[in-house]
Amino acid sequence: MRNIKLILEYDGTDFAGFQTQGKGERTVQTKLERAISELACEQAAVVAAGRTDAGVHARGQVVNFRTGWEIPIERVPVALNGILPRDIAVRSAQEVDESFHARFSARQRTYLYLIWTAPERSALWGRFALHEPRDLDLPAMREAACALIGARDFAAFANSGGEPGSTTVRDLRRLDIRVVKPGEMVAVAVTANAFLRSMVRNLVGALLTVGRGEMPTEELAAVAKTVDRAKNRCPTAPAHGLCLLRVDY
Amino acid sequence: MRNIKLILEYDGTDFAGFQTQGKGERTVQTKLERAISELACEQAAVVAAGRTDAGVHARGQVVNFRTGWEIPIERVPVALNGILPRDIAVRSAQEVDESFHARFSARQRTYLYLIWTAPERSALWGRFALHEPRDLDLPAMREAACALIGARDFAAFANSGGEPGSTTVRDLRRLDIRVVKPGEMVAVAVTANAFLRSMVRNLVGALLTVGRGEMPTEELAAVAKTVDRAKNRCPTAPAHGLCLLRVDY
Repeated sequence: MRNIKLILEYDGTDFAGFQTQGKGERTVQTKLERAISELACEQAAVVAAGRTDAGVHARGQVVNFRTGWEIPIERVPVALNGILPRDIAVRSAQEVDESFHARFSARQRTYLYLIWTAPERSALWGRFALHEPRDLDLPAMREAACALIGARDFAAFANSGGEPGSTTVRDLRRLDIRVVKPGEMVAVAVTANAFLRSMVRNLVGALLTVGRGEMPTEELAAVAKTVDRAKNRCPTAPAHGLCLLRVDY
Repeated sequence: MRNIKLILEYDGTDFAGFQTQGKGERTVQTKLERAISELACEQAAVVAAGRTDAGVHARGQVVNFRTGWEIPIERVPVALNGILPRDIAVRSAQEVDESFHARFSARQRTYLYLIWTAPERSALWGRFALHEPRDLDLPAMREAACALIGARDFAAFANSGGEPGSTTVRDLRRLDIRVVKPGEMVAVAVTANAFLRSMVRNLVGALLTVGRGEMPTEELAAVAKTVDRAKNRCPTAPAHGLCLLRVDY
């Protein structure tokens, strides 16, 4: 059996997330497994580095699958892109070692959260960026972000639905707030070894609460210390601003 | 009567173009006039700087309309954006002189045509850029572009359906081919006093024909001289790569 790694791009708008949970949902996993199964003439099961929520996009999602499919590896992207729907694309394919596992072998994941900051909403960025017309205090957000960097228990930023009994400690390595275009776009880049369920969206939701002046900067560290999502009154940021940028191995 | 100028953004994917021609078509004009009429409680008729084709996007389309609507001008974008569909947004509103006409007062229009040049198609750029996986000879395209700059008869680059009997001379001021991201994105920026029907898409179609090595550079000038679209064998580039960037007055 070959072990094949794919780098995937998708527009999450019309997907119920990456992973198939119930029947009849339109998920990236279902579409991809169906495409592989059709071409390889065998059932395929893919494993993803990040099980993105409904509405979350990807530029560099990584998946792998084991297959007896006999196709030159460089033909895989073209073959799959020919039958995948327009909102999923295979960017590259690589034959990898038997031991490679898209999820467990990953060293770290990087997500990007886009915030459209112009007073008026954007018709072109509407599906890829959260619209926040209120003034954001970026220095306060950066200060709050610094207090969260490092290996700690992020349970206060995890929505329910994670794996029961497993650790909620994660190593947050980067939480950068960058002005992409003054008056129009702010981007939050987040890197960690791994993420809890909806963790990036909860971190961004908390930073936005600070940025709007609705919570003092110092309080975010205190929220983290509660290790309890119920004690974190900050909203989860909407899915459509989020994109899985890359996975490092 | 007030004369109001709007700057509009739209994702052209699901529109049958800017202008309403038949009944029941989903056009930007219909949606915008309906929104204004609903808020102003009177019939509204808008005039646009560029009557973009079906599928063409806009970041800086300009329209104007005359109205008795009594609303502070700074409230107009928020009011309209509240009821316009997600794929249209008003970026700004301004009260202008009685004589201002979005189309006839415009000095020049600038369009951007995006070409996704990676070997694999993109799921995120799929609706905003043409996928061209074949190698493009950019120096040849730039040389061909230079031969077209200036005031001349562009009838060889006009699809039928323009206004009969009117001049087909236009002043092409800029036709730049720029690498936005090596191996991923090329952009063609085009500025002219005004454009004939599908002219930008015909210019880009001709440049791509040269870029793929399917037509010698010198031939493009000869094609232009025929002043006959039927003698121009280059295809019209697809609509979805094109965006009306700005209109200058």
